[in-house]
Amino acid sequence: MKKWKRSTRLVDMTQQLTLQPHRLISLSEFANRYQAAKSSISEDLAILHEVFHQEGYGWLETVSGAAGGVRFIPKTTREKAEEIAERLCRQLESPDRILPGGYLYLSDLLGDSLMVRDIGRIWATVFAEERVDAIMTVETKGIPLAYATAGLLGVPVAIVRRDSRITEGSVVTINTVSGSSRRLGSLSLSRRSLKEGSRVLIVDDFMKAGSTVRGMMDLCREFQAEVAGVGVMAELLAQERLVDQYYSLVTVAEVDERERRIQVLKGNLFSGEAFTWKS
Amino acid sequence: MKKWKRSTRLVDMTQQLTLQPHRLISLSEFANRYQAAKSSISEDLAILHEVFHQEGYGWLETVSGAAGGVRFIPKTTREKAEEIAERLCRQLESPDRILPGGYLYLSDLLGDSLMVRDIGRIWATVFAEERVDAIMTVETKGIPLAYATAGLLGVPVAIVRRDSRITEGSVVTINTVSGSSRRLGSLSLSRRSLKEGSRVLIVDDFMKAGSTVRGMMDLCREFQAEVAGVGVMAELLAQERLVDQYYSLVTVAEVDERERRIQVLKGNLFSGEAFTWKS
Repeated sequence: MKKWKRSTRLVDMTQQLTLQPHRLISLSEFANRYQAAKSSISEDLAILHEVFHQEGYGWLETVSGAAGGVRFIPKTTREKAEEIAERLCRQLESPDRILPGGYLYLSDLLGDSLMVRDIGRIWATVFAEERVDAIMTVETKGIPLAYATAGLLGVPVAIVRRDSRITEGSVVTINTVSGSSRRLGSLSLSRRSLKEGSRVLIVDDFMKAGSTVRGMMDLCREFQAEVAGVGVMAELLAQERLVDQYYSLVTVAEVDERERRIQVLKGNLFSGEAFTWKS
Repeated sequence: MKKWKRSTRLVDMTQQLTLQPHRLISLSEFANRYQAAKSSISEDLAILHEVFHQEGYGWLETVSGAAGGVRFIPKTTREKAEEIAERLCRQLESPDRILPGGYLYLSDLLGDSLMVRDIGRIWATVFAEERVDAIMTVETKGIPLAYATAGLLGVPVAIVRRDSRITEGSVVTINTVSGSSRRLGSLSLSRRSLKEGSRVLIVDDFMKAGSTVRGMMDLCREFQAEVAGVGVMAELLAQERLVDQYYSLVTVAEVDERERRIQVLKGNLFSGEAFTWKS
């Protein structure tokens, strides 16, 4: 723009902040961009903050001091998150989803790029206050959820493979035993795709007993990485559980293959004990 | 918000439009949301359009008439796209990427969620004028690029698998022959993950002779779907080419395993013949 005014600044700042979530932008950077006084920029930011907060888009976090500035933290509200969880429950309860062996068909839901984006926003909200350096997931269906979350937290993604491919270079491989079927498997992560000492958020689509998530936690240890949290879209109500701390968006309480009935409830994100939503 | 003013409307409209790309929003919807006259809304939209256009965020497309409204088309500029292509060239030329067999290590680049988002924006720009109903890609590394594009075009993603899994339900499988190594393979797509008659944009990370892309085009035919276009992040300069029409962001001209040298150039998106950038 040749000449910025408050009206055009407000539009541009909204874009700049939402395109760079979690990045600290200094007031000077804005003042230079818009050729405006820092006091005007502060007033603009107050307007943005009011709208973001009231309409549930997220927060503007102000960091004071010489190295200070402002940071956009994308968030959603408990209401919107519950609405998404309820929609997911209804969609998952369709008997058409039952596949042989009691598996559930999920690919259509995970193919819905807007639904995926909404779920990513929920994880970005839940883990907004954690230090997260990277997202970890396992191929294939966890990948879209991982990227949707990573984009809003402004961090990279490390994709764990079930088979190690030549295109991954040197990898670290661990063995897993499936908690539900006692099947043996392995998980591999390319050496170069996760920095040692990272704080890692694990994101996946479906958790039964949790052996895959447990495997990813073990892989983190191999990289001297710390687990910042675990978020799964759907968990199956299981007797035996290999993971203690995790958040779930929905809980599949029952899959009755014979009666072709699926019962799905909201996950522990809404149970009150697991997570406290701020307003 | 209890009471909307122009300043708060501008911030909120920017969010509403960018969160729902390619969706037609009527002036009445905005007028209701903000309790404002349509003439005020039109003035607001003119301000948004000016900033979006001048700063290269995209376009506001106005549809007139009773069923009319406004639609946000996210776009990037040729300058920004070239900047991303050049950054990608430099990153790909690092000799560390050479893996046995002349493969290139790409996972770190595709793990960079911001880079992935930028590339998605390029495909959303290139195919903005096409009717696209769905994005198709193949597991694993094409998935992030497919979702980044799909989110900006507001369409779903269909993920093609190299092995068919029980969790996919009934699938359509075709056989492929790799153009480079003559290896046999197969590609499967779940019946439910693509509507018949869709117009499909194929997105992938790396194309050698093009047998995988060719396979996806054949799969489209099985679904009575039409190919709206093909976009690959990187293509290898190949003698034999199984696909005629595609766009590439960068071209890997040479991988010399012995000398450990990689030469990467900007792709056909910038060659002038393949694609015409609008300003």
